[in-house]
Amino acid sequence: MRLLEEKILSDGRAINEDILRVDTFINHQVDPLLMSRCAREFAVHFKGKGITKIVTIESSGIAPALLTSLEMNVPMVILKKQPSKVLNDDLYQTMVASFTKGTNYELTLSKEVISENDHVLIIDDFLANGEAVTGAVRLLRMAHATVAGIGILIEKAFQPGREKLEDAGFEVYSLARIGSMSKDQISFI
Amino acid sequence: MRLLEEKILSDGRAINEDILRVDTFINHQVDPLLMSRCAREFAVHFKGKGITKIVTIESSGIAPALLTSLEMNVPMVILKKQPSKVLNDDLYQTMVASFTKGTNYELTLSKEVISENDHVLIIDDFLANGEAVTGAVRLLRMAHATVAGIGILIEKAFQPGREKLEDAGFEVYSLARIGSMSKDQISFI
Repeated sequence: MRLLEEKILSDGRAINEDILRVDTFINHQVDPLLMSRCAREFAVHFKGKGITKIVTIESSGIAPALLTSLEMNVPMVILKKQPSKVLNDDLYQTMVASFTKGTNYELTLSKEVISENDHVLIIDDFLANGEAVTGAVRLLRMAHATVAGIGILIEKAFQPGREKLEDAGFEVYSLARIGSMSKDQISFI
Repeated sequence: MRLLEEKILSDGRAINEDILRVDTFINHQVDPLLMSRCAREFAVHFKGKGITKIVTIESSGIAPALLTSLEMNVPMVILKKQPSKVLNDDLYQTMVASFTKGTNYELTLSKEVISENDHVLIIDDFLANGEAVTGAVRLLRMAHATVAGIGILIEKAFQPGREKLEDAGFEVYSLARIGSMSKDQISFI
């Protein structure tokens, strides 16, 4: 998506070959019009897939996921990150290891807001190693819900997230795919 | 706001006299149409106040804040919760004690996304003791930004949040004000 790529080039900052900062338009400050255009793109792409729910991961995915849910007129569910396992029969829980932050957390989903009849579109801001999204997939499998697709704002295509998800049979649709980056340059594929 | 009050009565659950669960439409699952109507209400109420930025607190305030920022055509800023103080000259930080969760966290705001020229509307999901919002106010004061108003989805009017904020000179606009609640009944004022 040209608009997002241009914004990344103008306002993103590659700290090194792995870390891209998008604090001024996605992660800390959010550009609502840009997010709205991204959401429209997801809604058009996944139209006709019978989506009943948008699922995202706390907290940077909330903005694009919410606007996609508004576009598609279905509820959004925010998977919560807990520091440790909570004993609660009403929750699905799975541990996610974050390479980026070097921490672990429990991703949780309440049984109350998901069912086996749900067709879920997962939306997140970044796809790199795919830990967060595969954690979300595990939770949705526990609920016997169907993952109908995965929508990503920015994919680090030089990391193995997409391959893992495609190998598991999922469609990944990313609005910007970074092939490589360094302090001086960001290249899209 | 009648629509939000009706939703609280139909889908909210008062666990006891202090805790209201709104997991199925605000906190965990989000009803995008309801949030959109709430955002419209905030935008209409605070129109003409010269708002340049919407600020919210990670993560349950993001949904109403984002839609308000879209309505008002200004950026949104998400104040991040960190478990401990980060040494970084580019950040404003302040400690917030959460009565509800019995924990402390560092609320952070990057200097990059705020300036002394900003007129800020703070949006959050709940107002109870007002710790989170007063933390946000402290950060905005550090940046010499102006707090132009505070918009809240659900106010627990039997707790002292509003009084603290009004005593400090701020306008608080809440869409639903709970006067009292118990397992059997929720009363609005």
